[in-house]
Amino acid sequence: MKKIRAAVVGFGNIGRYSLQALEEAPDFEVAGIVRRDPTDRTDVPDFIKVVGDISELGDVDVAILATPTRKVEEHAVKCLEMGINTVDSFDIHTKIAELRANLGKVAREHGTVSVISAGWDPGSDSVVRALLEAVAPKGITYTNFGPGMSMGHTVAVKAIEGVKAALSMTIPVGTGIHRRMVYVEIEPGYDFEKVAAAIKADPYFASDETHVMNVESVDALKDMGHGVNLTRKGVSGCTQNQLFEFDMKINNPALTGQILVCAARAAMRQQPGCYTMIEIPVIDLLPGDRDQWIHLV
Amino acid sequence: MKKIRAAVVGFGNIGRYSLQALEEAPDFEVAGIVRRDPTDRTDVPDFIKVVGDISELGDVDVAILATPTRKVEEHAVKCLEMGINTVDSFDIHTKIAELRANLGKVAREHGTVSVISAGWDPGSDSVVRALLEAVAPKGITYTNFGPGMSMGHTVAVKAIEGVKAALSMTIPVGTGIHRRMVYVEIEPGYDFEKVAAAIKADPYFASDETHVMNVESVDALKDMGHGVNLTRKGVSGCTQNQLFEFDMKINNPALTGQILVCAARAAMRQQPGCYTMIEIPVIDLLPGDRDQWIHLV
Repeated sequence: MKKIRAAVVGFGNIGRYSLQALEEAPDFEVAGIVRRDPTDRTDVPDFIKVVGDISELGDVDVAILATPTRKVEEHAVKCLEMGINTVDSFDIHTKIAELRANLGKVAREHGTVSVISAGWDPGSDSVVRALLEAVAPKGITYTNFGPGMSMGHTVAVKAIEGVKAALSMTIPVGTGIHRRMVYVEIEPGYDFEKVAAAIKADPYFASDETHVMNVESVDALKDMGHGVNLTRKGVSGCTQNQLFEFDMKINNPALTGQILVCAARAAMRQQPGCYTMIEIPVIDLLPGDRDQWIHLV
Repeated sequence: MKKIRAAVVGFGNIGRYSLQALEEAPDFEVAGIVRRDPTDRTDVPDFIKVVGDISELGDVDVAILATPTRKVEEHAVKCLEMGINTVDSFDIHTKIAELRANLGKVAREHGTVSVISAGWDPGSDSVVRALLEAVAPKGITYTNFGPGMSMGHTVAVKAIEGVKAALSMTIPVGTGIHRRMVYVEIEPGYDFEKVAAAIKADPYFASDETHVMNVESVDALKDMGHGVNLTRKGVSGCTQNQLFEFDMKINNPALTGQILVCAARAAMRQQPGCYTMIEIPVIDLLPGDRDQWIHLV
């Protein structure tokens, strides 16, 4: 069976772990890595191509966009127009519907597929949340994150002028409320208080209690373990007090990388258009023959 | 918007709770109830039709088959041939693939849709299990049931000659291993030991440690609360020790009834054929406009 040729676009944490997941997947082959500086081969195995533009990789079925969230749309449009399916872990919840509409239009025009927001939240958690909404239609779901490092929030902090290194920790305080603990190293010549104010004003942080701390070494604090605890208490039919809980303790970029690879597989199985994970049958995330999975239902 | 007209076929526990879930659903209307004795109106609201054959209900979009599992195929074939979609909570895991193949053939021939094994296990648990297989492809999943009453097992015991009343409790002993505690009242003139042996030999019980007890009143023991604890420890990419847990404490037939109604909705949105829940996008289980759910991703 012909393997799916996947490119990894961007080679930060998510890109590195996506590459590992691709190498472990039985049905994929790595077309190559696309990064700003193609001469930088840090952490890249010898036999893998690194290029500056995806067009240099020849035949590519699907691009895993492991870029910062805010660069996703630009990269996705370019790939979709070239006839390459895309997947991403776009994580600004309030802008997913808009991204879906925009990429859906491009994808349908070019006969390609885009699977968006395919990380763990949004992503696999969204699938669990939607399932619980269905099976207990009245009630409240609380998603409690952490304690753990948020990749999206960390990248957002790093983008702020004067930040040399950053780490944003998410601390659950219950019922879906979180505290953000942000650890930064500051570039020489910048004022910590001004940088801290800019971080707190960023849309990623504006609605949460956020504490910014100036530290000597961000690197010494880094642990990519993360977790989620998702609960729903609701009503099935007219029966109250149905209780559901989904809990995980995971390496954050490893899980995201794996889900991106699953979504890349699913992208090959959908009609042209743009999809979130709740719009895709779960079986399409799994490798190989469908019948083997039906037997495990 | 035109409401979906649903019939409830069979009016035991699952049928009663399915009716409640239909009445609470914004997009359904109840076409009526089909039962062996249509003169029996126990627990049926006044305004609802009860008939002996589904053909007496006029226009029906979908039939919720709340019959014993072993009667599902016969009822489903009849409905699918009449142009009526079907949903069921068929729960013999080893025979799901065969049922899917048989009903799929009939459904495609008649332009209808069948969603099978749409309870909570198989059903919503299958969706969670498949999702976890995808996001951590190597590893072991354990599904631990109970403590709680198993509807399928209880019905299986009731079908055995000499059993007057029965209750089968599922007790989790860890790592997916269960003990079955079966409480029975015996018909006069039957030998308890022979009945107990027949229960233990039934395919529902043959592979589990099963204890059968003769009691004065099964009714005094009945509590329809149930639970599941599903765990997976696995590998995402090449990162070990990813930990996942799904836990619920629920009223068993209420949850099954609600999921059957969700599956009935989804049946109206699929191409002709037969589907398990892992083959259906989760969004199709939810009422109303898709866009409102995308906003909650």
